Amino acid sequence: MTVSPFDHPLLSGLLGDEEAARHFSADAEIDTMLDFERALAQAQAESGIIGKDAAAAIVSVLLSYKPDTTRLRAGVAKDGVIVPELVRQLKAAVGAPHDASVHFGATSQDVIDTGLVLRLRQVIDHLDLLLTENILRLTALEERFGDKAFTGMTRMQPAISIRVSDRVAAWRAPLQRHRQRLSQQSPRLLVVQFGGAAGTLEKLGDKGPAVRAALAAKLSLGDAPQWHSQRDALADFAGWLSLVTGSLGKFGQDIALMAQAGTDIKLSGGGGSSAMPHKQNPVKAEVLVTLARFNATQLSGMHQALVHEQERSGAAWTLEWLLLPQMAVATAAALRLAAELTGQIESLGH
Amino acid sequence: MTVSPFDHPLLSGLLGDEEAARHFSADAEIDTMLDFERALAQAQAESGIIGKDAAAAIVSVLLSYKPDTTRLRAGVAKDGVIVPELVRQLKAAVGAPHDASVHFGATSQDVIDTGLVLRLRQVIDHLDLLLTENILRLTALEERFGDKAFTGMTRMQPAISIRVSDRVAAWRAPLQRHRQRLSQQSPRLLVVQFGGAAGTLEKLGDKGPAVRAALAAKLSLGDAPQWHSQRDALADFAGWLSLVTGSLGKFGQDIALMAQAGTDIKLSGGGGSSAMPHKQNPVKAEVLVTLARFNATQLSGMHQALVHEQERSGAAWTLEWLLLPQMAVATAAALRLAAELTGQIESLGH
Amino acid sequence: MTVSPFDHPLLSGLLGDEEAARHFSADAEIDTMLDFERALAQAQAESGIIGKDAAAAIVSVLLSYKPDTTRLRAGVAKDGVIVPELVRQLKAAVGAPHDASVHFGATSQDVIDTGLVLRLRQVIDHLDLLLTENILRLTALEERFGDKAFTGMTRMQPAISIRVSDRVAAWRAPLQRHRQRLSQQSPRLLVVQFGGAAGTLEKLGDKGPAVRAALAAKLSLGDAPQWHSQRDALADFAGWLSLVTGSLGKFGQDIALMAQAGTDIKLSGGGGSSAMPHKQNPVKAEVLVTLARFNATQLSGMHQALVHEQERSGAAWTLEWLLLPQMAVATAAALRLAAELTGQIESLGH
Amino acid sequence: MTVSPFDHPLLSGLLGDEEAARHFSADAEIDTMLDFERALAQAQAESGIIGKDAAAAIVSVLLSYKPDTTRLRAGVAKDGVIVPELVRQLKAAVGAPHDASVHFGATSQDVIDTGLVLRLRQVIDHLDLLLTENILRLTALEERFGDKAFTGMTRMQPAISIRVSDRVAAWRAPLQRHRQRLSQQSPRLLVVQFGGAAGTLEKLGDKGPAVRAALAAKLSLGDAPQWHSQRDALADFAGWLSLVTGSLGKFGQDIALMAQAGTDIKLSGGGGSSAMPHKQNPVKAEVLVTLARFNATQLSGMHQALVHEQERSGAAWTLEWLLLPQMAVATAAALRLAAELTGQIESLGH
Repeated sequence: MTVSPFDHPLLSGLLGDEEAARHFSADAEIDTMLDFERALAQAQAESGIIGKDAAAAIVSVLLSYKPDTTRLRAGVAKDGVIVPELVRQLKAAVGAPHDASVHFGATSQDVIDTGLVLRLRQVIDHLDLLLTENILRLTALEERFGDKAFTGMTRMQPAISIRVSDRVAAWRAPLQRHRQRLSQQSPRLLVVQFGGAAGTLEKLGDKGPAVRAALAAKLSLGDAPQWHSQRDALADFAGWLSLVTGSLGKFGQDIALMAQAGTDIKLSGGGGSSAMPHKQNPVKAEVLVTLARFNATQLSGMHQALVHEQERSGAAWTLEWLLLPQMAVATAAALRLAAELTGQIESLGH
Repeated sequence: MTVSPFDHPLLSGLLGDEEAARHFSADAEIDTMLDFERALAQAQAESGIIGKDAAAAIVSVLLSYKPDTTRLRAGVAKDGVIVPELVRQLKAAVGAPHDASVHFGATSQDVIDTGLVLRLRQVIDHLDLLLTENILRLTALEERFGDKAFTGMTRMQPAISIRVSDRVAAWRAPLQRHRQRLSQQSPRLLVVQFGGAAGTLEKLGDKGPAVRAALAAKLSLGDAPQWHSQRDALADFAGWLSLVTGSLGKFGQDIALMAQAGTDIKLSGGGGSSAMPHKQNPVKAEVLVTLARFNATQLSGMHQALVHEQERSGAAWTLEWLLLPQMAVATAAALRLAAELTGQIESLGH
Repeated sequence: MTVSPFDHPLLSGLLGDEEAARHFSADAEIDTMLDFERALAQAQAESGIIGKDAAAAIVSVLLSYKPDTTRLRAGVAKDGVIVPELVRQLKAAVGAPHDASVHFGATSQDVIDTGLVLRLRQVIDHLDLLLTENILRLTALEERFGDKAFTGMTRMQPAISIRVSDRVAAWRAPLQRHRQRLSQQSPRLLVVQFGGAAGTLEKLGDKGPAVRAALAAKLSLGDAPQWHSQRDALADFAGWLSLVTGSLGKFGQDIALMAQAGTDIKLSGGGGSSAMPHKQNPVKAEVLVTLARFNATQLSGMHQALVHEQERSGAAWTLEWLLLPQMAVATAAALRLAAELTGQIESLGH
Repeated sequence: MTVSPFDHPLLSGLLGDEEAARHFSADAEIDTMLDFERALAQAQAESGIIGKDAAAAIVSVLLSYKPDTTRLRAGVAKDGVIVPELVRQLKAAVGAPHDASVHFGATSQDVIDTGLVLRLRQVIDHLDLLLTENILRLTALEERFGDKAFTGMTRMQPAISIRVSDRVAAWRAPLQRHRQRLSQQSPRLLVVQFGGAAGTLEKLGDKGPAVRAALAAKLSLGDAPQWHSQRDALADFAGWLSLVTGSLGKFGQDIALMAQAGTDIKLSGGGGSSAMPHKQNPVKAEVLVTLARFNATQLSGMHQALVHEQERSGAAWTLEWLLLPQMAVATAAALRLAAELTGQIESLGH
């Protein structure tokens, strides 16, 4: 099924981003869940919570483990999350006597949230690279055309003459601030989630914090107290994604307006029309506006999802799943398209 | 790729709906596009716009036509829409001398919007059936438990004793109004889009309206002047989808609150936990809240997309593609889950 | 305080609408609440629920009644609604022995929701008049310039030549459909709310429906079962408001784009700049886009508020208060500005 | 007029915050605009851009200057901003020969945006104090009840026993992170806006940056290149506001759910009902949910407004005015209510 254009075999060529989307496939999701279970077993064996034999057995099974996805799908339909059925299968694969050591003291949210963070870390690396590329391309654009004259436009009307570099600076400066923001907020986001049934790691006695720290270290994540019901880092990251697409939407809108005016810009490689072969539509510029408005729309839902009930919400948590992956892919797509669009600018200014 | 849970092989078991999603697959989309081209050729042949031979050739090719999807994907990446490349391929398949009669006088938006409407018609039939089923199940619930006492709750506090039928009526009455709304708005939505390059059917001379009426009739759609840049019927339909999920979200929230209180309801088949085998989570009730908040979020974007530029917008139009299919599937999923949840109610009231 | 520009002594000259805003003043709100109490007393006296003497006493007090607003403000801060303190004051004003007959069998939500509907009825009349005026003005525009040539623009690029009437039709047709929508949805909205403590009119015995029907008749509203927790008619109306501003936003955007291009339109009376006296900014056209995006934003919250809990929600209900009045005033302002903007068009086409 | 409950004489007792709202009055707005003009004259006199006599004349007039607000209102209706008419009046008050030195080289957006930032600085101080108070109150709550047992609830169902301190930590930790976020993002927000007609300070020759730095210093703001069309700091701040209300909404929701369950919490001072005198409604808890959903709704519009056109947008800029002040007041109100609600908690846990 391809209900979302980001998953659509045809539309994702324009609207998607393969590298970002890869981290939101079911396979990538299960892989990071199993990474969690492996690291958990290892950390617990080191702390003496489970036996070293048990950990070795679990790690060994995980080397080549593939869950039965038909039963996972049925499990989700019943339980609302993948994990209960995944753990059931994994325990069966490990078998007695070590099955009781699988997923010990953990809960679904530990697995899913930590798994998400592991994948977001890779998505963030990808986005940061794309952001840097855009900054470099805009800098190159400024070096090439910066001193040329340019009609400054305010409130949709010609104002006074400025230089190309003035306009380009307004495109680039926000991207530089977005990199600064990312470096400030990432440490709050890229942390392990490990709390057990209701956040207290009650099965680990006084070793809870030590095991959590070891688990975090094994996964190369920051250590932090459980954040089951505290979703601010995710909502903040969603805000960052929408800031990025918003800034690129402004860039796209500017290009489309310049292309309409037909002065001050020359673009190559516009899109064709089925009715008018002569047209060169500024497709990528338009799509930047689309993706900005898309993320601005989704962001509202991510903030609605801050209202998590009690120790753990089902409703608000599931809402995040419907929103955040698409926001991340939209942002990657926008960064990719913006870089391509900058490359299509053959001249700026007059 | 499975960026959206509606497309996710595991999560769609809970959050998706196969019958609704089917109409948003790339195959279904292409099928309705080709339905448009076939009906157009036939309507134009009847009006003498193209030759009967040409129409016969086009219809014959379309009998078994399969486009090259790799090139369609590349076409979308360049043109922003599937149609230019699809028409190119179709013309090549028809070949000289009849290729010039393919897609004659039409434009991308005619094909895509009419194709969408054709699929929405089927989605609407599905949703209306599900809505009816929910009304029937709630009526049965009322018949079974309606006279039992029930603790009326206002502002999250016990108020006075009411009857189960009072609560059930508040769940059912909005669904009945939604059916009335659908019957009022569908005639505005289920109409053909046919306008040509800029909406004027300029290539058809004075036969434009007649061809459009014939095209509509062949597709069993209503006839209407072109609505390229007038998206009110789509935004209104999106509002309807969100009204439905909102009403079901209220139902789900009520069930979850009753399940928390642990009185006045007995539910079977709750979801399991990976940490606490004793729990029965009201998963479907929670997901109804999720889907209500999801659609309420998306709706904002559909209304942002009303601001179409000039004769045809690229940016706002593409935004619709990112929102409406998911809203429709979310609504179908909510209706399916609500019907299942009603079936899980073993007793209501005291 | 003037936190909202709609209430701002300076900004409301542009962004507000006095006639619509009038119905959302505290005075207008209290007036309709007292209308409810008066009509309730009369209806209940006719049905023998309260004595004719009691009704006469209540009506007589209400002739010149002014509540103590300082205490009302303190009451809201504590109770979350105006009504408990208002009723307390009104009972004191009526005095023994008839005070027990004041607000008999009613609850806060009956008073507030019916009071809102009474005011929305007047707002709707105002909006419908403005809508009609816009349709007439666009028709006049078409009559004046309709046959002139006009550059059709698709995807921000010149497409083919069309006529002015083609563009004007795309502005006007949605407004005509909005009038149709309003006539279909108003009967569901303009109904009395009367349910008592938890919706069952339990204090009225078997006379509940008859009293409610009489109350509705006295207030010239439709009669309907209580809808405390069924907010679909309000959310649907909010959607209608946003459809109207969305269509006008498209009109405004088109005008601003034409003004930027500087061809095909001549506008009088643009806004001035503090830095560039030569400029004529298309202020009203821009504000139409603003108001469209504003309402599209608010609409999401109105749909979130569909998730009312149980017999009556505090949280979701209060959310409506923060959103719907501003949406209504934004719509009135947009209709006013659109009519003015149409009047500023000195020529269209070429 | 009182279209917004934040401006409503009765409802603002619950939903508003006087200290925050004060900074969004028309008077406060004009005051900061005049602060800008005064500081600009002084900075320009120091740099020799205008004469010292001129600056002295301007400063002297501003000492007791009161604009004609009727004409300001008419000016806004025409120009879309207050500034052109305000500057016209101010120049008239200063008179020849120094009138030409008023607002020299500046534009409307310089005045309005810098004026906004000056007021946001005070709002931020207020919010930060309220945030600190909430953290302290929650810490006191933990000290008092932290060791008591508490029923951990996951997915709306009893999970395992935790301690009160576990729940309180989940309420407090996000607030602490919000303080950290604020300290990171404030330096990007609290900067001067000064760019002139199209951002280039073209009238100041090579003294532009020096004058801007002096202006910033006089206003105790950070110095930064003009950001007319780069609204990321404002959208980011809006996101922060919504993070705060989201975290408080989770707190409110938890309290309301506990109050419904009737165990584990004792609250004083709930709200009364007009129908059921025995009820104690958790009004403040509910309103925290309301304000969270309100801000989550508005945030979407602030991100839509990132798509500023060209050197300066009319439409997107005006949209900010309709959203940000209300978000700030909603946040202050939520912080005030949360602190009060914490004070109403008489016991937690069992």
